[in-house]
Amino acid sequence: MKISELSRRSGSPVGRIKYYLREGLLPPGRSMGATIAEYDEEHVQRLRLIRALTARGGLSIAAARDVLATVDHPEESRPTLGVLHHALPIPTESGDAEVGSEQLQQVKELLDALEWNVADDSPHPYALAAALKELSRLGVPYSNDDLFPYARLAASVARLDVGQLDGIDAPEQLAERAAIVILLLEPVLALLRRLAQEDEVRQRRAQPHPA
Amino acid sequence: MKISELSRRSGSPVGRIKYYLREGLLPPGRSMGATIAEYDEEHVQRLRLIRALTARGGLSIAAARDVLATVDHPEESRPTLGVLHHALPIPTESGDAEVGSEQLQQVKELLDALEWNVADDSPHPYALAAALKELSRLGVPYSNDDLFPYARLAASVARLDVGQLDGIDAPEQLAERAAIVILLLEPVLALLRRLAQEDEVRQRRAQPHPA
Repeated sequence: MKISELSRRSGSPVGRIKYYLREGLLPPGRSMGATIAEYDEEHVQRLRLIRALTARGGLSIAAARDVLATVDHPEESRPTLGVLHHALPIPTESGDAEVGSEQLQQVKELLDALEWNVADDSPHPYALAAALKELSRLGVPYSNDDLFPYARLAASVARLDVGQLDGIDAPEQLAERAAIVILLLEPVLALLRRLAQEDEVRQRRAQPHPA
Repeated sequence: MKISELSRRSGSPVGRIKYYLREGLLPPGRSMGATIAEYDEEHVQRLRLIRALTARGGLSIAAARDVLATVDHPEESRPTLGVLHHALPIPTESGDAEVGSEQLQQVKELLDALEWNVADDSPHPYALAAALKELSRLGVPYSNDDLFPYARLAASVARLDVGQLDGIDAPEQLAERAAIVILLLEPVLALLRRLAQEDEVRQRRAQPHPA
């Protein structure tokens, strides 16, 4: 298909498609002449993934390029999912958050208690420690006893997540699906929590607990 | 305490404190003269909450003012938590997402199946429908059968969330704690999910499923 058709199919304006081509996020089409290239279904799909990562997932163009490089060239030496996991943006808005050494120790103890195995270079324990420090500064500290039941539920969520990758063998496809599950399911889960909170509050109001 | 001490205690520069005073996010101190005001512990705590909502929670100043107004003046006519729930920002980055009527119908059926009660004017079903439409456009549609186990886990999370508000009777305190639980626990839960995913992937790799 021509670029105009690719634009129509993907919902991305031609100018934006050309930008992605220049930035190397979208592989070039098959050249059919000096100014004409032919695009295919993979370009449509790739454009949607780029949009998902940048517009929905909040990634910068540079960060999206890194993730797509992992999708396209899974390393032999490292498991795709591990690389991808650490390339995806971390779910905190707090660029300026400090990591408290106290909270980092707390996170280590939590992971030990849960018997969770996490890569040494994972950014997630630091991000969690920063989020916990923030809550503590607000006067609402969370102990590991408080976090434990949440962590158990997170483990059940993760089993559902990783189960969606079962049977996907091609590394490119695996990485693409994993990026979607890890990143784009996040708002879905947050919204299910909000809806469940609304229901829970209404339920409690309907049946007041005896004093 | 003087504004310099308030700055030191809260970690907010004096200029920022004055900005919050001008914008009406922080109530004025007790006037001790033409240019001197006396601040107290409530100002320290309020400053931390403003920072949490704006820097961590990603709220605009205007949105933070709305939330704080709910915290300060809980309406008699409407339950505090309901108002607050809908004033807090929605967990999607997708300002330009369309709400698919198909997905909205799907969300309604999901809520029915779960027997979840949600306010008629809740923004969350629309936001969820938009997130589902996005996944569908990416070629990874989620049916209600797929979402059901996630929703059950979200209900367990919500019970833990709402349970943290037990025994808090003062409406201002309730609203403040609820804002923290709803909004600032979100990155903590997302990070626990990421850590659990890392562990789940490692576990599966260690014990490959027989083909």
